[in-house]
Amino acid sequence: MRAAMEEAQKAEAKLEVPIGCVIVWQDQIIGRGHNLRETTCDPLAHAELIAIKQASEHLEAWRLLDCRLYVTLEPCPMCAGAIVQSRIPQVIYGTTDPKAGCAGTLMNLLQEERFNHRVDVVSGVLQEECSAMLTQFFRKLRGKG
Amino acid sequence: MRAAMEEAQKAEAKLEVPIGCVIVWQDQIIGRGHNLRETTCDPLAHAELIAIKQASEHLEAWRLLDCRLYVTLEPCPMCAGAIVQSRIPQVIYGTTDPKAGCAGTLMNLLQEERFNHRVDVVSGVLQEECSAMLTQFFRKLRGKG
Repeated sequence: MRAAMEEAQKAEAKLEVPIGCVIVWQDQIIGRGHNLRETTCDPLAHAELIAIKQASEHLEAWRLLDCRLYVTLEPCPMCAGAIVQSRIPQVIYGTTDPKAGCAGTLMNLLQEERFNHRVDVVSGVLQEECSAMLTQFFRKLRGKG
Repeated sequence: MRAAMEEAQKAEAKLEVPIGCVIVWQDQIIGRGHNLRETTCDPLAHAELIAIKQASEHLEAWRLLDCRLYVTLEPCPMCAGAIVQSRIPQVIYGTTDPKAGCAGTLMNLLQEERFNHRVDVVSGVLQEECSAMLTQFFRKLRGKG
């Protein structure tokens, strides 16, 4: 999760909402991503999707078997859906997202029985630090506005 | 929808599940995509995501305002989430997906009141033809197996 937080800091340095993600396979990080929605003008440029694409390229497979995904903020519906599509077995996230969280808060797409894949979910890892990064970012943003 | 079906045929020609998508803005197609999951080994390479990325590049914006998205098959959770993220106002789809459809079948992520964007949905356009493409593809696949 520390590595995911480092990714989040890269987003913050670009004035993007600080969210970061890493994907671990056999004790090595094979995918990294940080939120780049504004920089790239791409609605798909969430940390998780960038990391998933990189991990798929590394494994040369669309199934990310035996991988763990660490992300600082609870995944949105798009990212939760992408995690299901890529068959990632375990997701560890930092802090919950009351507005769009789809890994337990608003709904739980990662553990939906009707989908063809279900994910083991661990929440609250370094929760306070992950949450503080976001709070401070938005506080600064409002201060500037 | 005919243009989305043409995209689906491109997928079929590559032995991919025939699903196609186009995005229309001001009466022109600004995004096209067909399913390329196997060809590219990319779990994110669904027709909708490819079309959304192309349309965003065209408009140089992550918000696809005033766009309509046509897709031959009901969107999965990832693609439905991406449609919400990109603020597309209207989605028109061909046939329902009983296994993963998240635009009315298993659930309706496009019209979820708790999300910050809701989408107008039209279903069943050229339904029989869109459905027949998929049925025939899987029939052929089984015949070969």
